[in-house]
Parts: sequence; C-alpha cells; structure tokens
Amino acid sequence: MECLVHRVPMRDPSDASAVLQLIDDRLIAAHEIVAIFGKTEGNGCVNDFTRGYATMALSVALAKPLGVTAEEVPVRVAIVMSGGTEGGLSPHFLVFAVRERGAAPSGSKSLAIGAASTPVLLPEQIGRMPQVEATAAAVREAMKRAAIADDADVHWVQIKCPLLTSGRMADAASRGAATATDNTYASMALSRGASALGAALALGEVDPAALDDRAIGRDVGLWSPRASASAGVELLHSEIIVLGNSAAWSGDNVIAHGVMRDAIDLPSVIDVLNELDFKIAGQLDEVAASRILAVLAKAEASRSGTIRGARHVMSDDSDIQASRHARALVGGVLAGIIGRTDLFVSGGAEHQGPDGGGPIAVIARRPS
Amino acid sequence: MECLVHRVPMRDPSDASAVLQLIDDRLIAAHEIVAIFGKTEGNGCVNDFTRGYATMALSVALAKPLGVTAEEVPVRVAIVMSGGTEGGLSPHFLVFAVRERGAAPSGSKSLAIGAASTPVLLPEQIGRMPQVEATAAAVREAMKRAAIADDADVHWVQIKCPLLTSGRMADAASRGAATATDNTYASMALSRGASALGAALALGEVDPAALDDRAIGRDVGLWSPRASASAGVELLHSEIIVLGNSAAWSGDNVIAHGVMRDAIDLPSVIDVLNELDFKIAGQLDEVAASRILAVLAKAEASRSGTIRGARHVMSDDSDIQASRHARALVGGVLAGIIGRTDLFVSGGAEHQGPDGGGPIAVIARRPS
Amino acid sequence: MECLVHRVPMRDPSDASAVLQLIDDRLIAAHEIVAIFGKTEGNGCVNDFTRGYATMALSVALAKPLGVTAEEVPVRVAIVMSGGTEGGLSPHFLVFAVRERGAAPSGSKSLAIGAASTPVLLPEQIGRMPQVEATAAAVREAMKRAAIADDADVHWVQIKCPLLTSGRMADAASRGAATATDNTYASMALSRGASALGAALALGEVDPAALDDRAIGRDVGLWSPRASASAGVELLHSEIIVLGNSAAWSGDNVIAHGVMRDAIDLPSVIDVLNELDFKIAGQLDEVAASRILAVLAKAEASRSGTIRGARHVMSDDSDIQASRHARALVGGVLAGIIGRTDLFVSGGAEHQGPDGGGPIAVIARRPS
Amino acid sequence: MECLVHRVPMRDPSDASAVLQLIDDRLIAAHEIVAIFGKTEGNGCVNDFTRGYATMALSVALAKPLGVTAEEVPVRVAIVMSGGTEGGLSPHFLVFAVRERGAAPSGSKSLAIGAASTPVLLPEQIGRMPQVEATAAAVREAMKRAAIADDADVHWVQIKCPLLTSGRMADAASRGAATATDNTYASMALSRGASALGAALALGEVDPAALDDRAIGRDVGLWSPRASASAGVELLHSEIIVLGNSAAWSGDNVIAHGVMRDAIDLPSVIDVLNELDFKIAGQLDEVAASRILAVLAKAEASRSGTIRGARHVMSDDSDIQASRHARALVGGVLAGIIGRTDLFVSGGAEHQGPDGGGPIAVIARRPS
Repeated sequence: MECLVHRVPMRDPSDASAVLQLIDDRLIAAHEIVAIFGKTEGNGCVNDFTRGYATMALSVALAKPLGVTAEEVPVRVAIVMSGGTEGGLSPHFLVFAVRERGAAPSGSKSLAIGAASTPVLLPEQIGRMPQVEATAAAVREAMKRAAIADDADVHWVQIKCPLLTSGRMADAASRGAATATDNTYASMALSRGASALGAALALGEVDPAALDDRAIGRDVGLWSPRASASAGVELLHSEIIVLGNSAAWSGDNVIAHGVMRDAIDLPSVIDVLNELDFKIAGQLDEVAASRILAVLAKAEASRSGTIRGARHVMSDDSDIQASRHARALVGGVLAGIIGRTDLFVSGGAEHQGPDGGGPIAVIARRPS
Repeated sequence: MECLVHRVPMRDPSDASAVLQLIDDRLIAAHEIVAIFGKTEGNGCVNDFTRGYATMALSVALAKPLGVTAEEVPVRVAIVMSGGTEGGLSPHFLVFAVRERGAAPSGSKSLAIGAASTPVLLPEQIGRMPQVEATAAAVREAMKRAAIADDADVHWVQIKCPLLTSGRMADAASRGAATATDNTYASMALSRGASALGAALALGEVDPAALDDRAIGRDVGLWSPRASASAGVELLHSEIIVLGNSAAWSGDNVIAHGVMRDAIDLPSVIDVLNELDFKIAGQLDEVAASRILAVLAKAEASRSGTIRGARHVMSDDSDIQASRHARALVGGVLAGIIGRTDLFVSGGAEHQGPDGGGPIAVIARRPS
Repeated sequence: MECLVHRVPMRDPSDASAVLQLIDDRLIAAHEIVAIFGKTEGNGCVNDFTRGYATMALSVALAKPLGVTAEEVPVRVAIVMSGGTEGGLSPHFLVFAVRERGAAPSGSKSLAIGAASTPVLLPEQIGRMPQVEATAAAVREAMKRAAIADDADVHWVQIKCPLLTSGRMADAASRGAATATDNTYASMALSRGASALGAALALGEVDPAALDDRAIGRDVGLWSPRASASAGVELLHSEIIVLGNSAAWSGDNVIAHGVMRDAIDLPSVIDVLNELDFKIAGQLDEVAASRILAVLAKAEASRSGTIRGARHVMSDDSDIQASRHARALVGGVLAGIIGRTDLFVSGGAEHQGPDGGGPIAVIARRPS
Repeated sequence: MECLVHRVPMRDPSDASAVLQLIDDRLIAAHEIVAIFGKTEGNGCVNDFTRGYATMALSVALAKPLGVTAEEVPVRVAIVMSGGTEGGLSPHFLVFAVRERGAAPSGSKSLAIGAASTPVLLPEQIGRMPQVEATAAAVREAMKRAAIADDADVHWVQIKCPLLTSGRMADAASRGAATATDNTYASMALSRGASALGAALALGEVDPAALDDRAIGRDVGLWSPRASASAGVELLHSEIIVLGNSAAWSGDNVIAHGVMRDAIDLPSVIDVLNELDFKIAGQLDEVAASRILAVLAKAEASRSGTIRGARHVMSDDSDIQASRHARALVGGVLAGIIGRTDLFVSGGAEHQGPDGGGPIAVIARRPS
C-alpha cells in the first residue's frame, strides 16, 4: 500500500473543485480517498460555519464519483475541518489516499495511515476518563489498521471528537447523569483534552496512574506530543486518524514530528526538518519546499500570558479570540522557515504539547 | 554624541513606570530623551485609543522629571505610538536618548538620530504633492541635525503625519478648497503614502518626475525602503525622526535596514542581521538576541490577495482588519528568527516597500 | 391566486428542516414555493459564508420534494439570503408560496408577488446606468407578473444583484472596458445603489433626468422608499421580487410600507402598523403580534456620524463593521414595538431610503 | 440640598471639555461635583482601555478647577466608567453635583444622592459572602448620607467593585488563602454578582438565608432590581453610589425605576416613564424627551439562548462578545421609545435583574 498526499487550494469553503480535479487528472481515484483535512477560513470558534459548509460541499461534490449519496460521503471518507486562517495562512485541503500496489515495500519505512472510531460517547462521558479510554482503544485500533507496530513510528494522531450541546446536557440530566460542564464552549476544550490524553495513554506518553477526571483540562503537565484534537457538533463518537511510518507501506512519503516548546520555538521546527533531510540555512528554497506535502501544527496562547517573559495580549483581547492570535503567530513562524503559507495550523491545544506550545509534524517526499 | 536605545515593557497603555525606572536607575536622564516609540495593544485602526492613552500617560509621567507641564512634554519629546500587538507581539516602548560625550568619536560610524517638523499642513495639502515636498524638506533637515551627510547612511525615517477629520474638511470647503478625499479613513492612507513618498524624494529613491497627485496612493511601484509613516489625529503638521549611522556619533549602537519583498521574506531579514554581524543558523540564541535593541518593520496585506501564489484572507475578512492580520504574520516571521516578541511591527505600508512587503530595520550593539 | 407567507426558524445555516416541515405538514406544497428569504447569522459582509451555506442546504433539502437536482433548485425558487443577526435578531426563513385558488378574489386587494430577472450584466455595466435601466425593466416585468398595475400598490422590491470580482474586472479589462471601481467591496455598494435607483426609476420615485453614472453611490438625495438590494457573488444577473397588494389576488395577507427617516424613527414604524389596523399603545400584545407574518427593513449608519445630533461610533469602529451596529440598533427599535425578534433587517442601504434611515415593510394577516 | 444632573457629550475618551464647559458656564461649580458616570466607546470587556483613558482625562482636566493634583481627583469625585456604545449608543458623561440651598425642601421628594465605600477587600473575599456583606453595609451607609430612610425610595445603586488579577491571586496564595476563581475574567462576573447581592441584601430584596458562597454567580433566581455593578482593575475596595428620592432634598429632579423582564421588555420601560408623568403614545416628542436627564439600564444575553422562544446568537458569536450584542439591542429598544441615543446602557448583569433582563431607571425633571 502507498499513502498519497495532495495539498490543494480552495477559493472559498464551498469550493471542492481542486479535489475533483485530482480525480479528473487521475492523480487519485475517488475510492482511494480515505481522509480529507481542510483548513477553512472561519473564526475557528463556536460560530465557525465554514467547517460544516466545506464538509457539505465536499460531500455533494464527491457523491457522484464515489457512487453514493452526499449523506454517505462522510461515512466513507474521514473529513476533518479546522477553521481559522489568520495572519497569512492559506485555506486548503489535504487529501489522503491509499493505493494498493503490486510492488513489495522497499524495506525502508513509508508514510502509513489508519483510521478508527470510538463507540458513541454518552454526554456524561465527554471530558472524562471513559472518553480517554475509548479514545486510547481507537488509537490502538487505528495503529493496527495502519500496520504500525512500534509506538515510536506514530507521528500524528488526528482526533475529531464530540462536544456537549444543551440538548445533550438535557438528555444526561433526564437520566439523572451529570455532565463534566454545563457550558458548551468549555465542553469543546474538555473533549479535546480527554481525546489528547487518550492518545497519550495509547502511546505510553503519560503515566496511567496520573490520569483521572480531575486532571482533564487542569493538569497542564500531562500532554501528548503527537495528538491533535478538534471538537465538532456533527458527531457523537470520535474519529481517529493515525499517521506514521511503516515498513508495510511503500512509496516516497515519510512523516516526522516534534514539539514546539512555545509559540516561537523555531529550533524544534528545524529539528523536524533536519530529520527529513532538509538542510536549513534560513528559509527553504523553492526546490526544497516542493518536497513538503503537509505541515500539521497546533497553536495556543500560553496561560502565563507571556512568551519568554514578554507579555502577549492574546487572552486579554475581547475582540479577537486567543486561538486566532495563536494561529496567526505560529503560522508566521512556520511560513518564515518553510516559505509557504498553506500550513495546517489549528488551535485549541489542551493536553497537546506544553502550555503555549504544541505538536508539529511534517510530511515530505524523500529527497531524490 | 551617543544615541542610547532602551526597550522597556508596559503592563497596559497607561503604564509608563518602566520609562521612569530608566531615569531612576540613571541609565538615562530625563532631558536626554529625544524620542519615544510605543507599540500599544489597541487595534491599530481608527478607534485605537491606546495610542492617545499611552501618550497622555507618558506626558503625565515625564512632566515632573522634565520640569514642564504634561501638555509640554510632546513638544520636548517626539512621541510616536503605533497600535496593534496581534499574534504574539509584546507591548513595549523604545526610548531614544542622546548623551553628550567628551570622548571623540571612534572613527567608525555609530547610531545617529535627528528630528524635524514640517510646517502645519492645510487640509487640502494632505495626501498631495505639497505634503510630499514639505516632508522631503523636513527629512533633509532631520538628516542635517543627525549629522548624516550621505543618503546611504539613513536607515529609517519615522514619520508621524496628520489626517483629515470632518472638521478639517469643512474648514477647507469653507475656503473653497477641495481635499484629496472626503473619507477620514482613506485620508490616513493618503497621508501615510504622501509622507513615504516625501522620504523617498528626499533620499533619491524615486524619480521626481514620476511624482504627482495622481500617483499618491495609486502607483504601488513607487516606494521608499526606509520610510515608516503613521497618521494621527493629534497633530496638524508632520514630525520626522531620522535614524542612521554617522561618524559624528560615538557609541556601540548601529542600525541596518532591508526590504521584505513579501510578508514571509525571511531571507531579507537574515540579510539585515548578517550586516550586523549576526551568524544565522536558525533562531538567534539568547546571547546573540541580547545584542538587538530594536526591530522596526512595516506590514501590509498584499493587494493581489496572495502570498507566493497562495490565497490569504486578510482583505476579505470583515471581522479582523487586514492590517491586524498582517502585523500578526510579520510578527511571527520575525519572532521565529530573532527569538523575541517585543518587535515594533506597524501596519499601513502605503509606498513603504513593495506591495505586500515592507521595510525592516534592526538596531543592535556591536559584537564585543 | 393567493400568496402564502411562512416564517420559520433555523437552528444554524444548514438547517432547512423547518421548511421541509411546512411541506410535511401540508401547509404548502413544494412546487408552490416561489421565493425564500433567509436571515442568516454571519457577519453580513464580504466573508459571510452563512448565506451560501444556507442556500446550499436549502437546495439540497428541496431537491427531492421538487424532483430536481440541487443545482436546479435556485433556478426554480428565488433564494435571497441576508447575513447578520446582531443584537437580538433571530435567524429565520421567510417562505413565499403561491397557491392557485378556484375562488374569485374578494374585491379587496391582497398580497401579490412577482419575480423577474435582468439579462446578464457585463462587469462594466455594474454600478452604472445600464444596470439601473435593466433593473427598472425587470421591476416593471415583475409588477406585471404580480398583476400590479398601479405603482402605488408596490410596497417592497427585493433585488439580488451581482458584484465585481477580480476575475470579472480582468475580463472587462481584457476587452478594453473600464469598470466603475477596482475595489470588490466598493462594487457591492455600487451594485446595490444602482439596483435601488433602478427600482426608483421604475416606480417613478426619482426624476430620470437626475440619474447618471456620477450620481450612483454619491447623490444621497436620490432614493427609493421601497427598494431593498443585496449583492452576491453567486450570480451575474439581477433577480427582482416585487411584493405588493393586488385585487387580482385573494387571501387575508396584505403588505404596507414606510420609510424610517433615521435609525430610531419609531413613529414611521407605527404609521405602517396603523395602516395595517394595529392599535399601538406601546408594544403589540401577543395576539396582535401573531398577525404579523414578516417585517422587512434596511439599516445603515448615517454618514453624518450622528443620530439626532448625538454622535454614534458605527463608522469609526474598526472591530465591528458599521452595518453590524446598524442592524443591531434597528432590530432593537423594531423588536421593542413589535415584541418579536425574527425580523428581516438587512444592511447596506445605498439609495434605499434617506441617509441613516431606510425602508420598512410589514406583511400581516387582516384582523378578523 | 439639590442634586443637579448634567448629560454632556464626549468627542472621544480623552475629551472632558464639555464637563469643563459646565463649570465655565457656571451651571455647576467644580467642588459641587460628587460623581461622574461615563459611557465610553470601548468594547466594555477586558481590554477596554477607554474607561481608564477617560478617567485619566477627567482627572487631568478637573485637577485645576478642584485645586488638587490629578491623582487626587478620583478620591474627591466618584468616577464610574462603563465601556460599550454598540448600535447607536452615544458616548457621554453624566455629571452629578450637589448644591447646598438656603430654601427649605418643598415637601415632595426630590432626587437624592449618597456615596460610600467598603473597606479594602482581600482577594479571597471577592465573589464571596464577605464582599456581599461589606457591600450591603456600604449601601446602607450611602443611603444614610443620601438622607433616604425608606428602602422603597432607593431607585438605583451603582457599584464599582474590584476584580482579581494574577498578582492578587498570587498574594492570596502566598497567605495560604484560596480565591473564588483562578480566572481573571470570571472574577469580574463574580465580583459584580456579589456586589449586586450586597445591594439586594441591604434593600431586603432577597432572603438572607438564601445567600451563601455557592449561590453567587449560580442562582439566577436571586437578583436586585436596582443594582448596577461594574468591575474595574483600578480599585481594591468598592464604591457605592445610591440614587433615590428624599423629602430632605429639593429641586425638580426625580428618579424612578423598573425591571425589564427580557431584553425587549418595552412595557416595563413605559411603566417607568408613566411613573414620571410622561404620556406614552409611541416615541416621546422632543419637548417631552427634553425632560429626561439620564437613562440607566443593564443589558445581558439570556442564558437560555432565546428571547421569547426565538433563538439569538449573542452567546455563540466568537467575533462579537455577548455583552456587546446585548447593549446594542437594549439601546435600540430604549432609543425607539425615548427618541435619544445618549443612554447609559451597561453590560454584565449578574444578579442584576432576571436572566436576560435587567434594571432600568430614569431621572427626569418634573413636568412644569
């Protein structure tokens, strides 16, 4: 098997034409598509409808090539939308496709992908240990499907998780169950946090004994360097996509990851690029940059209110949400070194990297 | 003479305590202060009152040490406030002081500063050639006061210029004179643009024959690589501060400048750092970064709507002004390489650098 | 014929379920639907994708009941989306359906509706007299289809008009034609203004001799008290929907209109309600309010910067667009007297009512 | 004694000229000023610096007429700033002055004012019962100073209260004390809520047995119909200003209050106006409106997410804070009936009126 990765632009959230063009150009076949990540141009917060709009547009567009109804497309393809292209970030889709190959793998490890789901999560499980454990189980299942045996070969765990709505909270209450929060917005953070800790548990990144309901959303010392979680109203279970390297896969694509210790931690980004055999002397030149297929990162305002001792205003700004500032900043740091702006930087990094920092992964073609 | 530069933080726009501390600590004397630049945390647009607030707070704070009334402080000290600390930018003041020295200059050129003003500009002159010419004359005067003879030794021209209010437009109309625009917001851009072209004219950066009223705000091919202009409602004339290097000055501080061709033009930033004898292999380490006294840059959304072919959303975003996106982005690019966030990145770069790019200057201590 | 009007809520822009429910409940048949107006919860400005999202959602939802593809739905049903539910405005759809009746009209005039389109408008025609004239012709055609002979029986002209994109401007340029503006956002205002003047021309509200290209967008003294225009990127021609009263129609619904002289002109609103036989002594009680089927209004910040001499901040606020302030304000004025918040208040009132004011219409059932 | 009330405009937060003009015009003497309320044009949230700016500007302006330093002005005059003039609200100052009169009171009750302060509140007391009790004591003291014996004669209690900063939280922690929250923003709501419950306790509006730490910020059934609280970083104690009617005072000014049950509760507003002998038949005419000296109201988004069953978007909007929507809406409702936009509508109504509603008071001259 080979995991193909295509990065294509969108003119607006309704524009799936570049994805269809990949099929028309026979770069991929519709049935090979296993996942589509989208960086859309909404605010990335509660009332960001660009995520749903892009999902609907992709579903309508892919229904015919897949030979299913629009409603069935998200069942066939894992669709993960992340809102927010602040600063200079450019709206784009990342299309992941799996091609069955006759050729045997080369011996070296290549990019591998696997997906799995948790069962439906009850409202009272969200943001609590049952979500952590269900996520951990699904991560292990996705690893198995990706034919990744060694934890160290996992480089990115993308998780799409549910949130609490007033309806779901009422449902729990009607059964006499209490939810972890009565605030919809807070439930997004708790669900992302529990998801990330689930990945950390599956990958042996945290001490299981340190995990309990109270730690979720509070103990910032517990985090995964490889998890990226986003919460959405459109699902009741969680979907997990594991990206890593595996000798069971073929092709020239590989992935590496690192952790930004704070929002301007360029050295950690350079370390990841070095692992992928880039030679860094300032910004990548155009030829080198063309080897990069995808950049995945999380961004978040530090709770300390400072970056290396200097005050930032992200959390005190009541006009622009903190996560919007953070994406713009990290996008600038990454664009400076990579020389491109179509970077998948998303916000809300609870338990995903240290406070104020976050995981970063790069998918690249091997140098020829 | 020696030009001292101190960068100090502010807790909020009203907090001038760190400037007073410089005096208490005898790092500078109050009467040595010639200019204060402030990066304040407002929106940097029309209703950004943090600029005025910080100016009032500085005036009140410095009145006693200077032995004048608060109203007289801005007459004695050139105060330039730039709003907007999006992304991770950190609010701070840059305090420029001039110390008379007994010692003769060393022979090498050191940081030099000079200030001058235009006469009061009539409303109908704003955004037109009379403003260009008055600015050019004041730039030449400021150069003279800075003892900079060679145009090539000028590295930054900071201009604070007036704008049109409805009152000033009515005044012009009452005299039968037409203003360049009937829109207050548009007048800010025109005034900045005419100011920048004034600097370009003084420094021989544009062909005088190419300049006329029609070109101002329209011909994006005309620009200064060293001008930085900001418009403010609080003055009727323009104030010019020239920064450069001169053999008539002593001390370890020097300035260099460059032009970012687009918002992610890290190589041009590295060129400036190289000129100042930094060795760049990724981010500056803490020791190297401590040599940097000030980073001055302009940021702007490209009119093309793209950065290196990839679409950005800055100009289409009706929730966050384009200049706010641009500052966050350029702030990220700079913070990545420099490892600090207290950078003086300001927006509104009409005729200040190429479309989507802008001038950048760095003031540093010589390596010991 | 009878014109039925149903006002239904939406949970979010993708939620067309309440429209489908009308069909399931046999209150209307799918083929009877002639127009759907939607008040969606975006910012109502350039990057408001809730309009497109709601249009796509309605199209997908109505495809099956109408027996057409989703793409064909907007050809069959005039869909007009207006973004922005600031303050307390509630997102909702207004569904207009036409029912053929055996019964003869009663003699009194009833609500009538008619739709028509202009031909495709060339980029260089937008915001200029050719658009004014094409709109006027379409308004007259829509009146004819609505069987309204007397201009005085027209009470609302809803116009959806095209705008200029960079692509369309390039197309004009390639043919050697100049467009009215080179600014996309400005083209929205010009297109709305030309559309409104087209309605004013058709209805005899302005002196044809006063109309020329220069007056469009500039002469605020020229306006229609019945036009409501919105510009959208999704069409190249204009669609016109005329609402009025006609003896050729039957049913209990009637429409009346007025003009708010400024944003807080409650007396003009009360006049409209009085015309519809409401007795006003403060807020309508619940029984009276239930007679009201739709409230249509335009809102805009006054160019003077004041309301009855008191300064407003709408146009100086760089964090919240002026039209957002204006909708919130007018929504509050209307909600106070009517006692409901599902009001179709839209922004951008160029040549639609006097500066700072705007047209208002109410559709109500006759009192029984 | 007579309580004079003057409402004057400001051009921007730094403009205290209209207050000085009152003194120049001998309408009031500087030493007669006891309180100044200001409605400033910031966002009314965390990073609203217009409140501090206006306070500094007033202090600088009044120092000379009062014969004190700028720092001493806020000790002499109670200055209460409320940010946010969304929709059509107009920035303005309300100046309250007390004039000693030789003439005996007329027998009827007239507007009375009294101020008092709590002791400094420890960080761990904020948002808890000690703050409730200290506020209640200060309200009773202010009533005494206003010579109001009967609780029923109190119509408005304006409270300016402290909040928690990270510094104050650290101070508590260093003493082993836990604060009510570790979130600065949340502390504003808790402090306002505890303040309002203090007023309710003083005025017998809530059952003392129902009050405990847990109820603060949670039990929305507990509220005062006369309290208006705002939290500010600039003080460590609370300042209370009581407004009411008293036979011990003379003059033509009187105050009345009511409670808006929801944000569009116009009937309750009309009831207040009726109490003040206005005859309401739609909007007040100019002559009637000129009798109104001040309108004071609180606005808040309902936690239910609806207004009379129709969904609002205030709490889901991540671009505009809920309190900004709420002020715009209530401002529109009030401006519609009163015909003016210089209304003191402020946000953050925890325990100040029912969920989604809030107290409203009107100060007017008696009809002649």
